[in-house]
Amino acid sequence: MLDLTFLPFCTFLGGLGFVCVAFVSAWCQHWRGGFAWDGSAQMFNWHPVLMVTGMVVLYGAAALVYRLPPTWRGPKFPWKVLHGALALAAFVLAVLGLVAVFRFHNDQGTPNMYSLHSWLGLATVLLFSCQVGAAPAPCPLMPLTLSPSLTLPHPIPSCLSPSHLPSTPSPRARKLLALLLPRKNGTTAYKLLPPEAVFANILGLLILLFGVLVLGALSRPSWKRPDADSPDSCQVPAPLGG
Amino acid sequence: MLDLTFLPFCTFLGGLGFVCVAFVSAWCQHWRGGFAWDGSAQMFNWHPVLMVTGMVVLYGAAALVYRLPPTWRGPKFPWKVLHGALALAAFVLAVLGLVAVFRFHNDQGTPNMYSLHSWLGLATVLLFSCQVGAAPAPCPLMPLTLSPSLTLPHPIPSCLSPSHLPSTPSPRARKLLALLLPRKNGTTAYKLLPPEAVFANILGLLILLFGVLVLGALSRPSWKRPDADSPDSCQVPAPLGG
Repeated sequence: MLDLTFLPFCTFLGGLGFVCVAFVSAWCQHWRGGFAWDGSAQMFNWHPVLMVTGMVVLYGAAALVYRLPPTWRGPKFPWKVLHGALALAAFVLAVLGLVAVFRFHNDQGTPNMYSLHSWLGLATVLLFSCQVGAAPAPCPLMPLTLSPSLTLPHPIPSCLSPSHLPSTPSPRARKLLALLLPRKNGTTAYKLLPPEAVFANILGLLILLFGVLVLGALSRPSWKRPDADSPDSCQVPAPLGG
Repeated sequence: MLDLTFLPFCTFLGGLGFVCVAFVSAWCQHWRGGFAWDGSAQMFNWHPVLMVTGMVVLYGAAALVYRLPPTWRGPKFPWKVLHGALALAAFVLAVLGLVAVFRFHNDQGTPNMYSLHSWLGLATVLLFSCQVGAAPAPCPLMPLTLSPSLTLPHPIPSCLSPSHLPSTPSPRARKLLALLLPRKNGTTAYKLLPPEAVFANILGLLILLFGVLVLGALSRPSWKRPDADSPDSCQVPAPLGG
């Protein structure tokens, strides 16, 4: 494997994430009629933008916070706040993205939850909500009994921390990829590979690349925090029965 | 993580793979008009069946051969033959699956290679062909100079052997999942979630489960061959310059 250093990789990944958000926004703005919050197709357009921003880019950023070498030294509290804030922002955007598609469906008289995309997507957001709900609050004095995610046995063989075991990024990535396969309106035109189709396909490739790079970074042993398997020194155990 | 033993898991996985193939065949036979090899929609139906059988089930089986405890003892040659045969069968079925969709497109006057599905799918099969082409032949006396895949630096941090680094199963799984989102004919009917839609969605979930279980098995440290990182004792190095 190439001998990469984390920070240049991280800078590239940040740029790639920015491009993903810019591309999906440009796609919806330029080819899909722009944005609104009124139950129309313009409201649906918030769905891909919010999901790519939240469940791909911000979620990926939250997952990589503890790979930053500065987080290995000194107090963990500020980094926990950053990790939690990114995850919470991702969750809020994902919920708004769901609101956008459900209200669009309801206002247009379209049934909800009929596609595999919708099944996997809702399951992913629900599992993500378990992560967010089960994650320990970043308060340094919070007793361990309030953080059920920490009761899992160590060492965790996964590249993720215990509170992240219930969900994998794969269904999310699949969901978003499936989203980017234009299915409504103009199937014939899509076959002729107009500029919009090329643009949307490239967007899909970029999102896939982002997800693969995040997973690759998480699984790279030399980028893990040296004491990743030790108990969290920032937590103060509560007395038994407390 | 649960303390699973490999063989019961493997039996379950084999059953799941069989169910995936049976379900995709039943879907195409019962709802999509059956099979033919004449450029019609019945020819297209071979595409999902061959891809699920080859690129999901047989490919997964080939990847897991060296996780079988009997392969850790005694000569490796028979297991290499089995691994190679499974991979080769997967490759042949994938090529036939591509022939089915290209001939269907050509006979119907539909352009080829316009969708993200097709881009990722062809790229996956091409990368897979590199694996098959670069893999060392199972001959115990084949010189190392004929197996370029073995020139990569050790230790390989991946759960896969060097000859399998160029490709990941993810695009394949995504491709197949996208395939299972019915897009042609009856979009409105799909929204009403008829039995076919429920069946196809469940098929997609089963294929996803199969892929996740294969990846999970590959990444489980206790199921790896104890000497997985040592040079292949079955290979005889060729003299320099040979």
